[in-house]
Amino acid sequence: MASDRRQMKLGAFFHPTGHHIASWRHPDAYAPAHVDFAHYKQLAQTAERGKFDLLFLADSPAMRNWPPERQSRVATYIAGFEPITLLSALAAVTEHIGLVATATTTYNEPLHIARKFASLDHISGGRAGWNLVTSTNPKEALNFGKETHLAHDDRYDRATEFAQVVQGLWDSWDEDAFVRDKTSGRYFERERLHVLDHKGEHFSVRGPLNVPRPPQGHPVIVQAGSSDVGKELGARIAEVIFTAHQTLDSAKKFYDDLKGRLAKYGRHPDDVKIMPGVSPFIGRTQAEADEKFEALQSLVHPEIGLALLGELLGNFDLTPYPLDGPLPEIPQSDSSQHVFKMFTDMAKNENLTIRQLYQRIVLRGHWIVRGTAETVTDQLEDWFKNGGCDGYNVMPPYLPGGLDDFVDQVIPALQRRGLFRREYEGKTLRDNLGLRRPQSRYAAPAREGVALGR
Amino acid sequence: MASDRRQMKLGAFFHPTGHHIASWRHPDAYAPAHVDFAHYKQLAQTAERGKFDLLFLADSPAMRNWPPERQSRVATYIAGFEPITLLSALAAVTEHIGLVATATTTYNEPLHIARKFASLDHISGGRAGWNLVTSTNPKEALNFGKETHLAHDDRYDRATEFAQVVQGLWDSWDEDAFVRDKTSGRYFERERLHVLDHKGEHFSVRGPLNVPRPPQGHPVIVQAGSSDVGKELGARIAEVIFTAHQTLDSAKKFYDDLKGRLAKYGRHPDDVKIMPGVSPFIGRTQAEADEKFEALQSLVHPEIGLALLGELLGNFDLTPYPLDGPLPEIPQSDSSQHVFKMFTDMAKNENLTIRQLYQRIVLRGHWIVRGTAETVTDQLEDWFKNGGCDGYNVMPPYLPGGLDDFVDQVIPALQRRGLFRREYEGKTLRDNLGLRRPQSRYAAPAREGVALGR
Repeated sequence: MASDRRQMKLGAFFHPTGHHIASWRHPDAYAPAHVDFAHYKQLAQTAERGKFDLLFLADSPAMRNWPPERQSRVATYIAGFEPITLLSALAAVTEHIGLVATATTTYNEPLHIARKFASLDHISGGRAGWNLVTSTNPKEALNFGKETHLAHDDRYDRATEFAQVVQGLWDSWDEDAFVRDKTSGRYFERERLHVLDHKGEHFSVRGPLNVPRPPQGHPVIVQAGSSDVGKELGARIAEVIFTAHQTLDSAKKFYDDLKGRLAKYGRHPDDVKIMPGVSPFIGRTQAEADEKFEALQSLVHPEIGLALLGELLGNFDLTPYPLDGPLPEIPQSDSSQHVFKMFTDMAKNENLTIRQLYQRIVLRGHWIVRGTAETVTDQLEDWFKNGGCDGYNVMPPYLPGGLDDFVDQVIPALQRRGLFRREYEGKTLRDNLGLRRPQSRYAAPAREGVALGR
Repeated sequence: MASDRRQMKLGAFFHPTGHHIASWRHPDAYAPAHVDFAHYKQLAQTAERGKFDLLFLADSPAMRNWPPERQSRVATYIAGFEPITLLSALAAVTEHIGLVATATTTYNEPLHIARKFASLDHISGGRAGWNLVTSTNPKEALNFGKETHLAHDDRYDRATEFAQVVQGLWDSWDEDAFVRDKTSGRYFERERLHVLDHKGEHFSVRGPLNVPRPPQGHPVIVQAGSSDVGKELGARIAEVIFTAHQTLDSAKKFYDDLKGRLAKYGRHPDDVKIMPGVSPFIGRTQAEADEKFEALQSLVHPEIGLALLGELLGNFDLTPYPLDGPLPEIPQSDSSQHVFKMFTDMAKNENLTIRQLYQRIVLRGHWIVRGTAETVTDQLEDWFKNGGCDGYNVMPPYLPGGLDDFVDQVIPALQRRGLFRREYEGKTLRDNLGLRRPQSRYAAPAREGVALGR
């Protein structure tokens, strides 16, 4: 029986060997993860056993923007599966869990993206989600015939129009369009097919999409922008928002800010689920959890810590500065503005050296919780009950062990406290997240839109 | 035990409800096929039971270029799964069969295509193939911000460079690049990573590809161009060639022509497998097979027969001409030149009316064989043994029954005659097709190429 109480939404966010920058070096991490489908199949099935709402894969269509010597020391954003092909394969070996992947709006075409996520939604029976991002890695431009990377606000302009086109394409077919009447020879009703005919600043896309309306109406749209324009785009179109915070206070501010922006788009606070990232280190005792954390920390090559910090601060080269000196003045760059502010504030407020700062951001600024299953659960409950979030995007520090620990120990504790489901509520990702099914723009009562047929 | 004799290569080519233009109206055809993953899973597993080398999915990123009234009467090129997502899901529920899909070079980016097929190759353990096409549907342009469709020879210029970029990207990583040495912290050897840095007429793509070298080295490249530039591209890069012929004589001419073009690219005749399409109607008697064919023919709405013929003749409007009159003079268009010539020759040589011609091309110009399992096998053996082909791309007229008939009746007959395998020879599509594994352009002995690392 479902609980009447508000319950957490949980995502399982998989980097191949885990999220800690040194994860692949952990003795229990499965290093060939990046090319092993069986590994991901096991992770997906474990997460489904844990009743996670969704699993999530990040993406960039380029390698990490580091010099080769540094690239060669890390396992993430180097080389592995393209995430949509991977999700499709995982759809065939799972039944309930939502399947969410990043795809950039900066170096893609809306028709291809609309089509792939609609197809994934059909293949999975309504479990697809699209994490809409703008690219922060300037090297991506060079893979697509562009000399220079688009600037931050231009990327968001393009992203906003991109999303509108994708949503419009998903409405190409009414749900009851395909009558398939063998006797009359009528396969679909032409007045239930809609031509988008979008002409905008960035895109001209006629449509219709050659995929029937997705089972969820629209696949779930996920977003993670935390700059002002990013939050505005999230408030306008996102249904799940990933974010990074180190403290409940920061999480609350973001939560209130974002939910406060929804009304002007005619949206209800429940229409968006806010899920900060959290990386849990779980032990039978606090000391064991701390040891797990320190073991990974000891594997961080100083050059890598420095490189990761520089990347997150907007591809700033920190190598000329002494490791045990203060963070220099760094100009605000074109990269993630939220992360930039979080790290520079942290360094200033806590008077951290460069080394101390990189040791704190080995999970890229996400919240690190360390403890027993019960004390980890206490911390997750604290943010959830005190206005910090609607749930979490769980980032196992190494894999597969970090996921197993969470599913075997923390999930049961959350369930015992009534904070998390014991069974999936519905068949689709939307059902499980408690999100409304979007109505087609062409549904009665008539709204402005393009004429039918063609 | 494998036969020493030369054996056929077989593809299973799936349109959702089958290849006959009226297939979906057949009482035994499964009409909701286009949105039912379980249907495709069943087809793939049946084809694998039949030891097919590969299954093949066609594609266009736009709806069929017909007016809505006509579109609404057909089931193909209307709306269904995007094929690469579908193949990925099928990879997870099959073990041996090759997975080939079309992706156009006209409205895609080489990096995205290289990446998806490399990823599919990893997911499937070396079973991916890419059917490289140039778009013939001019409506595709409008979905990608283009006012006009690229002209025929320009499309082939672009396709040739596109393929070179994709092949170059697949060579980004040496096979032994990922050492994953946990002790030293070295994840990959940087001198085993290669930056393509392609700058050409149509594309600038830096690379490297962020997917490790595919298990097959390169996914198998399939191609179907039959114009002069199309055959030249095929001779240069294709490893499997699909083609359409009505007679052994036509098939032989194409076979000899194509194989004769290989030497100038330093290739051996066995490096390319030529597989004409064939659509088999199988009965317990010849009369039963003929009845199956006529039953489908009777379901062809005249407007649809006319529309299909007009489309295949280069989007020519035949509606003003009398159905029972001769084919008018039609200007050679920008569409498939081989199909145009085949149909106009057929009409002229056999003095066919428009109606008679469309009744003959309900399988889009592919060979239709009608008979018992033994007489169908006789006909397949005839072309195969007499220089017409290396195998066939089998196009079941309706599904799933048309595939079941072939697997249950014709495959055993082929096996009894030693013309087809009883067990898969190897693990990869390349192994089963008997194709060489391509060497990396960076492999010793050193060839010209771009400097390592970055």
